[in-house]
Amino acid sequence: MAELKRASPASPVAGQVISVRFKTNRRMELKDITAEVMQAVAESRVEDGLCCLYVPHTTAGILINENDDPDVAADILTVLERLAPQAGSYKHWEGNADAHVKAALVGTSQAVPIEGGKLGLGRWQGIFFCEFDGPRQREVKVKILADASGHGR
Amino acid sequence: MAELKRASPASPVAGQVISVRFKTNRRMELKDITAEVMQAVAESRVEDGLCCLYVPHTTAGILINENDDPDVAADILTVLERLAPQAGSYKHWEGNADAHVKAALVGTSQAVPIEGGKLGLGRWQGIFFCEFDGPRQREVKVKILADASGHGR
Amino acid sequence: MAELKRASPASPVAGQVISVRFKTNRRMELKDITAEVMQAVAESRVEDGLCCLYVPHTTAGILINENDDPDVAADILTVLERLAPQAGSYKHWEGNADAHVKAALVGTSQAVPIEGGKLGLGRWQGIFFCEFDGPRQREVKVKILADASGHGR
Repeated sequence: MAELKRASPASPVAGQVISVRFKTNRRMELKDITAEVMQAVAESRVEDGLCCLYVPHTTAGILINENDDPDVAADILTVLERLAPQAGSYKHWEGNADAHVKAALVGTSQAVPIEGGKLGLGRWQGIFFCEFDGPRQREVKVKILADASGHGR
Repeated sequence: MAELKRASPASPVAGQVISVRFKTNRRMELKDITAEVMQAVAESRVEDGLCCLYVPHTTAGILINENDDPDVAADILTVLERLAPQAGSYKHWEGNADAHVKAALVGTSQAVPIEGGKLGLGRWQGIFFCEFDGPRQREVKVKILADASGHGR
Repeated sequence: MAELKRASPASPVAGQVISVRFKTNRRMELKDITAEVMQAVAESRVEDGLCCLYVPHTTAGILINENDDPDVAADILTVLERLAPQAGSYKHWEGNADAHVKAALVGTSQAVPIEGGKLGLGRWQGIFFCEFDGPRQREVKVKILADASGHGR
C-alpha cells in the first residue's frame, strides 16, 4: 500500500503538494495508484478543481487507462518495449536509455478534473504510475487546485 | 455539431465541468472540437486562467495539432496504426487492445492557457479528440480554472 | 539565452502568461529551457501553485526528462526519428509531416507543481522544448496558477 506523505504538513491542506510514495517491484511495471490519488482528493476537501499528477523521475511516467483487465497494462508495456527496446542501441551509458525514451513517450504529468469532491475519472479508467527502470523507491506528486470561484465543503 | 452539456447546470459557471458530447463516425478518427472548446471558454467569462481538457475514456485520447490540412490528422493516425496495429498480437481479449495502447501514447489530458478571455492556441493549432475504437458516443470534459488573482469580465 | 517576454506587461504578474522566446538551431533539437521557466516562476512570486507549459506550435512539443547527460536527449530524438522518419511516406504536402507526428507523440503541454516558490522538478529533471522542424523562432507559454487558498510571499 502506498503511503500518503505531505510535503509540508504544517501548511493548510489545499495549499500543499501530497507525495504518494511506493516501491516498484519489477524493471517495467504499470502500478495502479488510483486509490491513493482518490484518498488525496478526499482529504483535500476540494469540491471543484483540478487534480494534477506529476512524476519527478526521468525513467518513469504516468498514464490513465483501463485498470479492469490487467492484460491492457501488459499490452501497453509490450508495445513500449517494442518501440524502445531495452536491448536497443543507445548513446546514454547507464544502460537505461530505453527507460528515458519510454518516459518521454508516455509523459510525466496528467490532470483530472475534480467534480463534487470526486475525481472525474471515466468508469473504466485507473491511474497508473509507469515504472520503466525499477525496482525502485518512487514518488508521484499530487497537486490539487481548488477552483478560484471555489466553494469548500 | 457537438452539444455543450453542463455536468451540473445549477452551479456557477466558473465552478463547473462542461461536457462536450458527440458521436464519432469511424473506428479511428481525429475529430476537431476546437469550436466547442472555444465556446465553453467564452461562456465561462474567465479572462485569465487555464482550460483543461480531459478524456474519460480508455480507448481515446486528446491532442493539439494542425487543423488546416486534414492530411496531417491522417498522417498521425497512419503512424499510430503502424506503431500499434489493430491486427497485432495482444493479450487483452476484447479486440481493441491497440486502441488502449494508442490512447496511452497520445494521452488523456491537455491544458491550454486562457489569455484575455480566449484560448491561447497557436495560429495553426486545433484541438482533436482522438477516437481509436469507434464509432461511439463520446465526451470531453472541459475544466476551466480562473486565475486565483483573477479579474472576471 | 532565451528572452522572457510578457504577453501583457500591464496586468498583474500572477494573472499573465509569460512567453519564453528563442531560436532553435537545427531541424530536430531538444532545447533545455529549465532556467527560463525557473526564472518565470521566481518572478511570479507564487509560493504554491502550478506551472503550466504550453507550446503554440504544430511541429514542436514539450517534455521533461534528464538534462544531465546530453546523450539522453539524443537517444530520445533517435527513437522518435525511427518511429516517424522524416523520409517516410506521408500525405501532408509540406515535407514536415513527420514533425507533426512527433509533436503528437510528445505532446504540447505539461504541468509542474510549484512548492515553496520553486518548481517541483525531480533532481535529474529538466524541461525541454522539442523542435522537430527547425531552425525557427519559437515560443513556450508559461501560465502560472496560484493556489486558490494561496499565500503570496
